[in-house]
Amino acid sequence: MREVILEAARAQFSERGYEKASVRSIAKAAGVDSALVHHYFGTKEQVFAAAIEVAFAPAFQAPGAVEDGPPEELGERLTRFILGVWDNPETRAPLLAIVRSAVSNETAAAVFRDLVAGQVLARIARGLDLPDAELRAELAAAQLVGTAMLRYVIKVEPLASVDLEQIVARVAPVVQGHLTADQ
Amino acid sequence: MREVILEAARAQFSERGYEKASVRSIAKAAGVDSALVHHYFGTKEQVFAAAIEVAFAPAFQAPGAVEDGPPEELGERLTRFILGVWDNPETRAPLLAIVRSAVSNETAAAVFRDLVAGQVLARIARGLDLPDAELRAELAAAQLVGTAMLRYVIKVEPLASVDLEQIVARVAPVVQGHLTADQ
Repeated sequence: MREVILEAARAQFSERGYEKASVRSIAKAAGVDSALVHHYFGTKEQVFAAAIEVAFAPAFQAPGAVEDGPPEELGERLTRFILGVWDNPETRAPLLAIVRSAVSNETAAAVFRDLVAGQVLARIARGLDLPDAELRAELAAAQLVGTAMLRYVIKVEPLASVDLEQIVARVAPVVQGHLTADQ
Repeated sequence: MREVILEAARAQFSERGYEKASVRSIAKAAGVDSALVHHYFGTKEQVFAAAIEVAFAPAFQAPGAVEDGPPEELGERLTRFILGVWDNPETRAPLLAIVRSAVSNETAAAVFRDLVAGQVLARIARGLDLPDAELRAELAAAQLVGTAMLRYVIKVEPLASVDLEQIVARVAPVVQGHLTADQ
């Protein structure tokens, strides 16, 4: 039941945006009573946070990419991982729903920020053990987020159509540089 | 009158999103008849394109940053220009309205893509005179777009609060690399 509600929540946030989606509309789409949504998750903000956690489940595993493997290939592992999640239509759809809400609404942006920056980026940063590690992780993420936006959301050409390997070849060294190069 | 309608259009796209905004709601906000909006601009899509052109007026001057000055400082000029536009609350607001619409709606994304990629990025690419110039310009833009999103929209810390100069110092070489480095 929890999964049914979460799936309905993701669809509602995607179709209606954070502001128009409500606990009531999510309950209705899931075919349950609003009280049950409140029971499982609490407020709309908390349903949104739960939906992000599910959508970002693959990304929350990203810190593993920092620890597992040679440090000089960290940029490539992270690039392949993040662009791989975006490249797969199944994992892209929930991400896109969350990003749309976060870009459009301050509350949704705050939830997104706390989860993604607070968990994913902070864990990557801790693995770096370098000065300005958080800023490094964020600027690496900026290259990946921007690339995903232009390739998968705005779909500018040729970026939207070139082979993923061409992008990895150009982006991975940049990500590696942000993470570990001397400044 | 054209400017009043455009300002109302920008506000409508920002507040209601591309889908909910309509020629009628824009006309009402501008205090004019819908026929006048159609007369000046045509369809909603065309009003949106006009609103983008105004919002991106500073960015449409960006190609000047490619031509004026030493080529090895191109990355820094472009970085300062783009992040400068985002750093100024007055030029940021209209940009944000457009980006929100483009992220949320396919039609708005297409208009955004044609104008920004077709005009700004294509002109920068032509100035490069290198193989894969368009892809280079797009990946440079990806670093800048991602940095702007995380700093000004999602507001992740420390990126949201560090001095702009710290960001320029780290991002400009990356932008320069995308644009002109050997691949």
